[in-house]
Amino acid sequence: MRFVLKVSYDGTDFAGWQIQPQKRTVQGELERAAAEIFGRPVSVQGSGRTDSGVHALGQICQFDAETGIPAPKLRECFNARLAPDVRILSGAQAPEDFDCIRNAKKKTYRYRFYCAPCELPLISRYGAWVRFQPKIDAMEREAKLIEGEHDFCAFCASGSSAKTTVRTVYSVAVSQTPCYGGSMYDITVCGNGFLYNMVRIIAGHLLAVGCGQREEGSVLTAFKTGERGLLGKTMPPHGLTMVGVDYGFELFDGRED
Amino acid sequence: MRFVLKVSYDGTDFAGWQIQPQKRTVQGELERAAAEIFGRPVSVQGSGRTDSGVHALGQICQFDAETGIPAPKLRECFNARLAPDVRILSGAQAPEDFDCIRNAKKKTYRYRFYCAPCELPLISRYGAWVRFQPKIDAMEREAKLIEGEHDFCAFCASGSSAKTTVRTVYSVAVSQTPCYGGSMYDITVCGNGFLYNMVRIIAGHLLAVGCGQREEGSVLTAFKTGERGLLGKTMPPHGLTMVGVDYGFELFDGRED
Repeated sequence: MRFVLKVSYDGTDFAGWQIQPQKRTVQGELERAAAEIFGRPVSVQGSGRTDSGVHALGQICQFDAETGIPAPKLRECFNARLAPDVRILSGAQAPEDFDCIRNAKKKTYRYRFYCAPCELPLISRYGAWVRFQPKIDAMEREAKLIEGEHDFCAFCASGSSAKTTVRTVYSVAVSQTPCYGGSMYDITVCGNGFLYNMVRIIAGHLLAVGCGQREEGSVLTAFKTGERGLLGKTMPPHGLTMVGVDYGFELFDGRED
Repeated sequence: MRFVLKVSYDGTDFAGWQIQPQKRTVQGELERAAAEIFGRPVSVQGSGRTDSGVHALGQICQFDAETGIPAPKLRECFNARLAPDVRILSGAQAPEDFDCIRNAKKKTYRYRFYCAPCELPLISRYGAWVRFQPKIDAMEREAKLIEGEHDFCAFCASGSSAKTTVRTVYSVAVSQTPCYGGSMYDITVCGNGFLYNMVRIIAGHLLAVGCGQREEGSVLTAFKTGERGLLGKTMPPHGLTMVGVDYGFELFDGRED
Protein backbone atom coordinates (compact mmCIF):
# COMPACT_ATOMS: atom_id res chain seq x y z
CA MET A 1 0.00 0.00 0.00
CA ARG A 2 1.28 3.42 -0.95
CA PHE A 3 0.65 6.36 1.36
CA VAL A 4 1.17 10.09 0.92
CA LEU A 5 1.70 12.74 3.59
CA LYS A 6 1.45 16.51 3.48
CA VAL A 7 4.22 17.90 5.69
CA SER A 8 4.94 21.38 7.08
CA TYR A 9 8.20 22.25 8.75
CA ASP A 10 10.19 25.14 10.13
CA GLY A 11 13.51 24.60 8.38
CA THR A 12 15.58 26.62 10.87
CA ASP A 13 16.86 23.67 12.87
CA PHE A 14 17.08 21.14 10.03
CA ALA A 15 20.03 20.41 7.74
CA GLY A 16 17.48 20.33 4.90
CA TRP A 17 15.13 17.62 3.66
CA GLN A 18 17.52 14.90 2.54
CA ILE A 19 18.71 12.29 5.03
CA GLN A 20 22.39 12.61 6.00
CA PRO A 21 24.43 10.79 8.62
CA GLN A 22 24.78 12.61 11.97
CA LYS A 23 22.53 15.48 10.89
CA ARG A 24 18.96 16.33 11.76
CA THR A 25 16.98 16.25 8.50
CA VAL A 26 13.26 16.19 7.76
CA GLN A 27 13.47 12.94 5.81
CA GLY A 28 15.54 11.43 8.61
CA GLU A 29 12.96 12.41 11.24
CA LEU A 30 10.08 11.03 9.14
CA GLU A 31 11.88 7.73 8.51
CA ARG A 32 12.64 7.41 12.23
CA ALA A 33 8.97 8.02 13.11
CA ALA A 34 7.80 5.60 10.35
CA ALA A 35 10.12 2.87 11.65
CA GLU A 36 8.62 3.31 15.13
CA ILE A 37 5.06 3.16 13.79
CA PHE A 38 5.48 0.19 11.44
CA GLY A 39 8.16 -1.69 13.35
CA ARG A 40 10.53 -1.96 10.39
CA PRO A 41 12.67 0.40 8.25
CA VAL A 42 10.59 2.52 5.87
CA SER A 43 11.91 4.65 3.02
CA VAL A 44 10.17 8.04 2.77
CA GLN A 45 10.49 9.81 -0.60
CA GLY A 46 9.89 13.56 -0.91
CA SER A 47 8.48 15.40 -3.92
CA GLY A 48 11.63 17.52 -3.89
CA ARG A 49 14.53 18.32 -1.61
CA THR A 50 14.71 21.55 0.32
CA ASP A 51 18.00 23.07 1.44
CA SER A 52 19.12 23.64 5.00
CA GLY A 53 17.04 26.48 6.47
CA VAL A 54 14.25 26.32 3.87
CA HIS A 55 10.70 25.94 5.25
CA ALA A 56 7.66 24.05 3.94
CA LEU A 57 3.94 24.61 4.18
CA GLY A 58 2.91 21.64 2.05
CA GLN A 59 5.78 19.31 1.17
CA ILE A 60 4.48 16.00 -0.21
CA CYS A 61 6.11 12.66 0.49
CA GLN A 62 5.26 8.99 0.01
CA PHE A 63 6.11 5.61 1.51
CA ASP A 64 4.99 2.01 1.18
CA ALA A 65 3.71 -0.01 4.12
CA GLU A 66 1.40 -2.92 4.79
CA THR A 67 -0.65 -1.72 7.73
CA GLY A 68 -4.11 -1.81 9.21
CA ILE A 69 -3.85 1.82 10.36
CA PRO A 70 -6.50 3.85 8.49
CA ALA A 71 -4.86 6.62 6.43
CA PRO A 72 -6.59 9.51 8.31
CA LYS A 73 -4.99 8.21 11.56
CA LEU A 74 -1.48 8.44 10.13
CA ARG A 75 -1.30 12.14 10.95
CA GLU A 76 -1.61 11.65 14.67
CA CYS A 77 0.61 8.53 14.63
CA PHE A 78 3.43 10.53 13.05
CA ASN A 79 2.85 13.78 14.96
CA ALA A 80 3.03 11.97 18.31
CA ARG A 81 6.57 10.90 17.35
CA LEU A 82 7.83 14.15 15.80
CA ALA A 83 9.23 17.37 17.30
CA PRO A 84 6.92 20.42 17.04
CA ASP A 85 8.91 21.98 14.18
CA VAL A 86 7.68 19.30 11.76
CA ARG A 87 4.01 18.30 11.47
CA ILE A 88 2.00 15.99 9.24
CA LEU A 89 -1.01 18.03 8.07
CA SER A 90 -2.74 15.20 6.20
CA GLY A 91 -2.26 11.55 5.33
CA ALA A 92 -3.97 9.49 2.63
CA GLN A 93 -3.66 6.29 0.68
CA ALA A 94 -2.52 6.89 -2.91
CA PRO A 95 -2.93 4.88 -6.12
CA GLU A 96 -0.30 2.09 -6.24
CA ASP A 97 1.35 3.67 -9.28
CA PHE A 98 1.44 7.19 -7.80
CA ASP A 99 4.87 8.80 -7.83
CA CYS A 100 5.19 12.08 -5.90
CA ILE A 101 8.19 13.20 -7.96
CA ARG A 102 7.23 12.17 -11.51
CA ASN A 103 3.50 12.94 -11.22
CA ALA A 104 4.01 16.52 -9.99
CA LYS A 105 2.35 18.95 -12.42
CA LYS A 106 3.06 22.25 -10.67
CA LYS A 107 5.12 23.33 -7.70
CA THR A 108 4.76 26.57 -5.80
CA TYR A 109 7.41 28.33 -3.74
CA ARG A 110 7.28 31.62 -1.86
CA TYR A 111 10.23 33.88 -1.18
CA ARG A 112 9.73 36.47 1.56
CA PHE A 113 11.88 39.46 2.39
CA TYR A 114 11.19 42.59 4.36
CA CYS A 115 12.53 46.11 4.37
CA ALA A 116 13.06 47.81 7.74
CA PRO A 117 15.71 49.94 9.49
CA CYS A 118 17.04 46.81 11.23
CA GLU A 119 16.30 43.10 11.49
CA LEU A 120 12.91 42.42 13.06
CA PRO A 121 13.04 39.43 15.44
CA LEU A 122 9.38 38.48 14.89
CA ILE A 123 9.80 38.24 11.09
CA SER A 124 13.43 37.34 10.50
CA ARG A 125 12.97 33.63 11.07
CA TYR A 126 10.88 33.34 7.89
CA GLY A 127 12.01 36.32 5.83
CA ALA A 128 15.29 37.88 4.70
CA TRP A 129 16.07 41.43 5.81
CA VAL A 130 16.91 44.03 3.18
CA ARG A 131 17.93 47.60 3.92
CA PHE A 132 16.58 49.41 0.90
CA GLN A 133 12.99 49.60 -0.22
CA PRO A 134 12.59 48.20 -3.75
CA LYS A 135 10.09 49.64 -6.25
CA ILE A 136 7.32 47.12 -6.53
CA ASP A 137 6.17 48.23 -10.02
CA ALA A 138 9.64 47.54 -11.46
CA MET A 139 9.68 44.16 -9.69
CA GLU A 140 6.25 43.31 -11.10
CA ARG A 141 7.25 44.19 -14.67
CA GLU A 142 10.42 42.06 -14.44
CA ALA A 143 8.38 39.23 -12.85
CA LYS A 144 6.10 39.15 -15.91
CA LEU A 145 9.13 38.62 -18.17
CA ILE A 146 10.08 35.48 -16.22
CA GLU A 147 6.74 33.81 -16.88
CA GLY A 148 6.63 31.25 -19.70
CA GLU A 149 8.94 28.52 -21.04
CA HIS A 150 12.58 29.57 -20.99
CA ASP A 151 16.07 28.16 -20.66
CA PHE A 152 16.77 29.01 -17.02
CA CYS A 153 20.45 28.09 -17.28
CA ALA A 154 21.48 31.50 -15.87
CA PHE A 155 19.23 30.90 -12.82
CA CYS A 156 20.91 27.66 -11.84
CA ALA A 157 23.56 27.35 -9.15
CA SER A 158 26.74 25.78 -10.50
CA GLY A 159 27.20 22.08 -9.86
CA SER A 160 23.63 21.18 -10.77
CA SER A 161 23.16 17.87 -12.54
CA ALA A 162 19.87 18.72 -14.29
CA LYS A 163 19.59 17.17 -17.78
CA THR A 164 17.88 20.20 -19.22
CA THR A 165 17.62 23.73 -17.90
CA VAL A 166 14.40 24.50 -19.77
CA ARG A 167 11.48 25.05 -17.39
CA THR A 168 8.03 26.57 -17.59
CA VAL A 169 7.14 29.20 -15.01
CA TYR A 170 3.36 29.63 -14.89
CA SER A 171 3.28 32.69 -12.66
CA VAL A 172 5.47 35.03 -10.61
CA ALA A 173 3.36 37.13 -8.23
CA VAL A 174 4.78 39.96 -6.13
CA SER A 175 2.90 41.31 -3.13
CA GLN A 176 3.79 44.03 -0.66
CA THR A 177 2.20 44.28 2.81
CA PRO A 178 2.97 46.67 5.65
CA CYS A 179 4.64 45.00 8.60
CA TYR A 180 5.74 46.48 11.89
CA GLY A 181 6.79 49.83 10.46
CA GLY A 182 8.40 48.34 7.36
CA SER A 183 7.24 46.47 4.27
CA MET A 184 7.11 42.76 3.62
CA TYR A 185 7.41 41.36 0.09
CA ASP A 186 6.23 37.92 -0.95
CA ILE A 187 7.33 36.54 -4.32
CA THR A 188 5.23 33.50 -5.16
CA VAL A 189 6.49 31.40 -8.06
CA CYS A 190 4.59 28.54 -9.66
CA GLY A 191 6.22 26.34 -12.28
CA ASN A 192 6.52 22.82 -13.65
CA GLY A 193 9.85 22.37 -11.92
CA PHE A 194 12.76 24.34 -10.53
CA LEU A 195 16.52 24.20 -10.90
CA TYR A 196 18.77 24.30 -7.85
CA ASN A 197 18.53 27.78 -6.22
CA MET A 198 16.27 29.00 -9.05
CA VAL A 199 13.63 30.60 -6.78
CA ARG A 200 16.27 32.23 -4.58
CA ILE A 201 17.91 33.69 -7.71
CA ILE A 202 14.54 34.89 -9.09
CA ALA A 203 13.88 36.65 -5.76
CA GLY A 204 17.36 38.17 -5.70
CA HIS A 205 16.99 39.37 -9.27
CA LEU A 206 13.60 40.99 -8.68
CA LEU A 207 15.03 42.72 -5.60
CA ALA A 208 18.05 43.93 -7.61
CA VAL A 209 15.77 45.33 -10.34
CA GLY A 210 13.51 46.93 -7.71
CA CYS A 211 16.54 48.66 -6.15
CA GLY A 212 18.05 49.74 -9.48
CA GLN A 213 21.08 47.44 -9.18
CA ARG A 214 20.09 45.59 -12.34
CA GLU A 215 18.35 47.06 -15.37
CA GLU A 216 14.76 46.20 -16.10
CA GLY A 217 14.63 43.58 -18.82
CA SER A 218 18.11 42.20 -18.05
CA VAL A 219 16.42 38.83 -17.47
CA LEU A 220 15.72 38.62 -21.23
CA THR A 221 19.45 38.88 -22.00
CA ALA A 222 20.13 36.28 -19.30
CA PHE A 223 17.70 33.87 -21.00
CA LYS A 224 19.57 34.34 -24.30
CA THR A 225 23.14 34.25 -23.03
CA GLY A 226 22.88 32.07 -19.91
CA GLU A 227 25.05 34.58 -18.04
CA ARG A 228 24.52 34.28 -14.28
CA GLY A 229 26.17 37.69 -13.71
CA LEU A 230 23.31 39.56 -15.41
CA LEU A 231 21.02 38.59 -12.53
CA GLY A 232 20.85 39.63 -8.89
CA LYS A 233 22.32 37.70 -5.96
CA THR A 234 21.08 34.38 -4.60
CA MET A 235 18.92 35.19 -1.59
CA PRO A 236 19.53 33.37 1.73
CA PRO A 237 17.61 30.13 2.39
CA HIS A 238 15.54 31.19 5.41
CA GLY A 239 13.26 33.42 3.30
CA LEU A 240 12.19 30.46 1.13
CA THR A 241 9.12 28.34 1.78
CA MET A 242 7.94 25.43 -0.31
CA VAL A 243 4.21 26.08 -0.52
CA GLY A 244 2.81 23.01 -2.24
CA VAL A 245 2.65 20.57 -5.11
CA ASP A 246 -0.22 20.18 -7.56
CA TYR A 247 -0.80 16.69 -9.04
CA GLY A 248 -3.91 17.57 -11.05
CA PHE A 249 -6.16 15.71 -8.60
CA GLU A 250 -6.88 15.83 -4.87
CA LEU A 251 -4.45 13.62 -2.96
CA PHE A 252 -6.26 14.22 0.32
CA ASP A 253 -10.01 14.09 0.79
CA GLY A 254 -10.21 17.45 2.54
CA ARG A 255 -11.74 15.90 5.63
CA GLU A 256 -9.09 16.85 8.17
CA ASP A 257 -10.39 15.10 11.29
CA MET B 1 21.22 62.18 30.17
CA ARG B 2 18.21 59.94 29.89
CA PHE B 3 17.78 57.71 26.85
CA VAL B 4 14.89 55.60 25.62
CA LEU B 5 14.96 52.54 23.37
CA LYS B 6 12.24 50.78 21.43
CA VAL B 7 12.92 47.04 21.62
CA SER B 8 11.52 44.04 19.74
CA TYR B 9 12.19 40.48 20.83
CA ASP B 10 11.21 36.91 20.14
CA GLY B 11 10.42 35.73 23.67
CA THR B 12 10.84 32.01 22.92
CA ASP B 13 14.36 31.69 24.27
CA PHE B 14 14.10 34.26 27.08
CA ALA B 15 13.05 33.69 30.68
CA GLY B 16 11.01 36.90 30.34
CA TRP B 17 11.96 40.56 30.59
CA GLN B 18 13.11 40.87 34.18
CA ILE B 19 16.73 40.20 35.07
CA GLN B 20 17.32 36.99 37.04
CA PRO B 21 20.52 35.25 38.09
CA GLN B 22 21.65 32.39 35.80
CA LYS B 23 18.82 33.01 33.32
CA ARG B 24 18.74 34.62 29.90
CA THR B 25 16.42 37.62 30.15
CA VAL B 26 15.85 40.62 27.88
CA GLN B 27 16.71 43.13 30.61
CA GLY B 28 19.83 41.11 31.42
CA GLU B 29 20.96 41.12 27.77
CA LEU B 30 20.34 44.87 27.43
CA GLU B 31 22.24 45.66 30.65
CA ARG B 32 25.14 43.47 29.48
CA ALA B 33 25.25 45.31 26.13
CA ALA B 34 24.93 48.72 27.84
CA ALA B 35 27.82 47.91 30.19
CA GLU B 36 29.98 47.03 27.16
CA ILE B 37 29.03 50.25 25.35
CA PHE B 38 29.42 52.67 28.28
CA GLY B 39 32.17 50.85 30.16
CA ARG B 40 30.30 50.76 33.46
CA PRO B 41 27.18 49.10 34.92
CA VAL B 42 23.94 50.60 33.59
CA SER B 43 20.45 49.95 34.92
CA VAL B 44 17.86 49.51 32.14
CA GLN B 45 14.23 49.99 33.20
CA GLY B 46 11.38 48.57 31.09
CA SER B 47 7.90 50.06 30.71
CA GLY B 48 6.55 46.73 31.91
CA ARG B 49 7.67 43.17 32.46
CA THR B 50 6.81 40.42 30.04
CA ASP B 51 6.64 36.77 31.10
CA SER B 52 8.80 33.96 29.83
CA GLY B 53 7.82 33.20 26.23
CA VAL B 54 6.01 36.51 25.61
CA HIS B 55 7.17 38.51 22.57
CA ALA B 56 7.48 42.26 21.97
CA LEU B 57 7.15 44.45 18.92
CA GLY B 58 7.69 47.75 20.69
CA GLN B 59 8.75 47.40 24.32
CA ILE B 60 10.03 50.73 25.68
CA CYS B 61 12.90 50.99 28.13
CA GLN B 62 15.09 53.74 29.54
CA PHE B 63 18.55 54.21 31.04
CA ASP B 64 20.81 57.04 32.16
CA ALA B 65 24.28 57.56 30.76
CA GLU B 66 26.74 60.37 30.19
CA THR B 67 27.95 59.75 26.66
CA GLY B 68 28.99 61.49 23.49
CA ILE B 69 27.28 58.84 21.35
CA PRO B 70 24.45 60.54 19.41
CA ALA B 71 21.10 58.94 20.26
CA PRO B 72 20.39 57.71 16.66
CA LYS B 73 23.66 55.71 16.83
CA LEU B 74 22.55 53.83 19.93
CA ARG B 75 20.56 51.36 17.85
CA GLU B 76 23.56 50.03 16.00
CA CYS B 77 25.77 50.13 19.13
CA PHE B 78 23.31 47.88 20.96
CA ASN B 79 22.39 45.64 18.02
CA ALA B 80 26.04 44.84 17.33
CA ARG B 81 26.20 43.40 20.87
CA LEU B 82 22.86 41.57 20.96
CA ALA B 83 21.72 38.18 19.65
CA PRO B 84 19.35 38.31 16.64
CA ASP B 85 16.26 37.48 18.75
CA VAL B 86 16.39 40.94 20.37
CA ARG B 87 16.77 44.15 18.39
CA ILE B 88 16.73 47.85 19.18
CA LEU B 89 14.40 49.45 16.63
CA SER B 90 14.99 53.08 17.70
CA GLY B 91 16.93 55.08 20.23
CA ALA B 92 16.38 58.66 21.38
CA GLN B 93 17.24 61.10 24.13
CA ALA B 94 14.28 61.71 26.45
CA PRO B 95 13.37 64.61 28.73
CA GLU B 96 15.28 64.30 32.04
CA ASP B 97 12.05 63.80 33.98
CA PHE B 98 10.66 61.17 31.58
CA ASP B 99 9.62 57.94 33.27
CA CYS B 100 8.71 55.07 30.94
CA ILE B 101 6.55 53.39 33.58
CA ARG B 102 4.69 56.31 35.16
CA ASN B 103 4.27 58.38 31.96
CA ALA B 104 2.67 55.54 29.97
CA LYS B 105 -0.80 56.62 28.82
CA LYS B 106 -1.85 53.54 26.86
CA LYS B 107 -0.41 50.09 26.32
CA THR B 108 -1.31 47.71 23.52
CA TYR B 109 -1.00 43.93 23.56
CA ARG B 110 -1.96 41.38 20.91
CA TYR B 111 -2.98 37.80 21.59
CA ARG B 112 -2.84 35.45 18.59
CA PHE B 113 -4.29 31.96 18.27
CA TYR B 114 -5.09 29.84 15.25
CA CYS B 115 -7.49 27.06 14.49
CA ALA B 116 -6.26 24.15 12.36
CA PRO B 117 -6.41 20.33 12.36
CA CYS B 118 -2.95 20.20 13.94
CA GLU B 119 -0.21 22.55 15.09
CA LEU B 120 1.31 24.51 12.21
CA PRO B 121 5.10 24.84 12.57
CA LEU B 122 5.26 28.16 10.69
CA ILE B 123 2.73 29.83 13.02
CA SER B 124 3.04 28.04 16.34
CA ARG B 125 6.01 30.04 17.55
CA TYR B 126 3.89 33.21 17.77
CA GLY B 127 0.37 31.85 18.16
CA ALA B 128 -1.44 29.30 20.30
CA TRP B 129 -3.09 26.35 18.59
CA VAL B 130 -6.77 25.68 19.25
CA ARG B 131 -8.70 22.71 17.87
CA PHE B 132 -12.16 24.20 17.54
CA GLN B 133 -13.19 27.14 15.42
CA PRO B 134 -14.75 29.88 17.58
CA LYS B 135 -17.62 32.06 16.34
CA ILE B 136 -16.13 35.48 15.73
CA ASP B 137 -19.43 37.39 16.12
CA ALA B 138 -19.88 36.03 19.65
CA MET B 139 -16.25 36.92 20.44
CA GLU B 140 -16.76 40.44 19.11
CA ARG B 141 -19.90 41.03 21.21
CA GLU B 142 -18.17 39.82 24.38
CA ALA B 143 -15.10 41.95 23.50
CA LYS B 144 -17.30 45.08 23.42
CA LEU B 145 -18.48 44.35 27.01
CA ILE B 146 -14.86 44.39 28.23
CA GLU B 147 -14.25 47.92 26.98
CA GLY B 148 -14.50 50.71 29.56
CA GLU B 149 -13.48 51.20 33.20
CA HIS B 150 -14.08 48.08 35.27
CA ASP B 151 -12.78 46.24 38.30
CA PHE B 152 -10.74 43.53 36.57
CA CYS B 153 -10.20 41.57 39.80
CA ALA B 154 -11.53 38.36 38.16
CA PHE B 155 -8.99 38.78 35.31
CA CYS B 156 -5.98 38.82 37.59
CA ALA B 157 -3.76 35.83 38.30
CA SER B 158 -3.54 35.10 42.02
CA GLY B 159 -0.51 36.43 43.84
CA SER B 160 -0.62 39.83 42.17
CA SER B 161 0.43 42.77 44.31
CA ALA B 162 -1.52 45.48 42.42
CA LYS B 163 -2.94 48.17 44.71
CA THR B 164 -6.14 48.47 42.74
CA THR B 165 -7.66 46.14 40.18
CA VAL B 166 -9.62 48.90 38.43
CA ARG B 167 -8.37 49.48 34.88
CA THR B 168 -9.66 51.17 31.75
CA VAL B 169 -9.69 49.15 28.57
CA TYR B 170 -10.00 51.49 25.59
CA SER B 171 -10.54 48.85 22.92
CA VAL B 172 -10.65 45.11 22.33
CA ALA B 173 -10.48 44.32 18.60
CA VAL B 174 -10.90 40.82 17.20
CA SER B 175 -9.75 39.95 13.68
CA GLN B 176 -9.85 36.70 11.75
CA THR B 177 -7.61 35.99 8.77
CA PRO B 178 -7.20 32.81 6.73
CA CYS B 179 -3.89 31.08 7.27
CA TYR B 180 -2.55 27.92 5.68
CA GLY B 181 -5.90 26.14 5.51
CA GLY B 182 -7.04 27.31 8.95
CA SER B 183 -7.96 30.61 10.58
CA MET B 184 -5.83 32.97 12.62
CA TYR B 185 -7.36 35.21 15.28
CA ASP B 186 -5.74 38.36 16.63
CA ILE B 187 -7.15 39.95 19.77
CA THR B 188 -5.69 43.43 20.16
CA VAL B 189 -6.26 45.06 23.54
CA CYS B 190 -5.45 48.67 24.38
CA GLY B 191 -5.75 49.95 27.95
CA ASN B 192 -4.29 52.29 30.55
CA GLY B 193 -2.63 49.35 32.27
CA PHE B 194 -2.94 45.60 32.72
CA LEU B 195 -3.00 43.24 35.67
CA TYR B 196 -0.85 40.13 35.71
CA ASN B 197 -2.11 37.68 33.02
CA MET B 198 -5.04 39.98 32.22
CA VAL B 199 -4.60 39.88 28.42
CA ARG B 200 -4.10 36.11 28.41
CA ILE B 201 -7.31 35.72 30.44
CA ILE B 202 -9.23 38.11 28.14
CA ALA B 203 -8.08 36.02 25.13
CA GLY B 204 -9.02 32.77 26.87
CA HIS B 205 -12.42 34.15 27.81
CA LEU B 206 -13.22 35.36 24.29
CA LEU B 207 -12.19 31.96 22.92
CA ALA B 208 -14.40 30.19 25.51
CA VAL B 209 -17.38 32.37 24.58
CA GLY B 210 -16.68 31.84 20.86
CA CYS B 211 -16.70 28.05 21.40
CA GLY B 212 -19.80 28.06 23.62
CA GLN B 213 -17.89 26.99 26.76
CA ARG B 214 -18.88 30.21 28.54
CA GLU B 215 -22.12 32.12 28.10
CA GLU B 216 -22.15 35.44 26.31
CA GLY B 217 -22.25 38.24 28.86
CA SER B 218 -20.64 36.16 31.63
CA VAL B 219 -17.94 38.83 31.78
CA LEU B 220 -20.48 41.25 33.26
CA THR B 221 -21.12 38.90 36.18
CA ALA B 222 -17.36 38.46 36.59
CA PHE B 223 -16.94 42.25 36.87
CA LYS B 224 -19.59 42.33 39.63
CA THR B 225 -18.53 39.25 41.60
CA GLY B 226 -14.78 39.07 40.90
CA GLU B 227 -15.13 35.32 40.33
CA ARG B 228 -12.26 34.01 38.21
CA GLY B 229 -14.19 30.80 37.44
CA LEU B 230 -16.76 32.62 35.33
CA LEU B 231 -14.11 33.34 32.71
CA GLY B 232 -12.23 31.13 30.26
CA LYS B 233 -8.75 29.69 30.78
CA THR B 234 -5.49 31.64 30.83
CA MET B 235 -3.96 31.23 27.37
CA PRO B 236 -0.30 30.17 27.04
CA PRO B 237 2.39 32.88 26.91
CA HIS B 238 3.76 32.30 23.40
CA GLY B 239 0.61 33.75 21.73
CA LEU B 240 1.11 37.09 23.50
CA THR B 241 2.98 40.03 22.00
CA MET B 242 3.48 43.42 23.61
CA VAL B 243 2.78 45.79 20.72
CA GLY B 244 3.65 49.19 22.09
CA VAL B 245 3.31 52.00 24.59
CA ASP B 246 1.75 55.40 23.96
CA TYR B 247 3.11 58.35 25.97
CA GLY B 248 0.98 61.05 24.33
CA PHE B 249 3.96 62.40 22.38
CA GLU B 250 6.52 61.03 19.95
CA LEU B 251 9.49 59.55 21.81
CA PHE B 252 11.36 58.90 18.57
CA ASP B 253 11.67 61.36 15.73
CA GLY B 254 10.58 58.87 13.08
CA ARG B 255 13.85 59.27 11.19
CA GLU B 256 15.10 55.69 11.39
CA ASP B 257 18.51 56.02 9.73
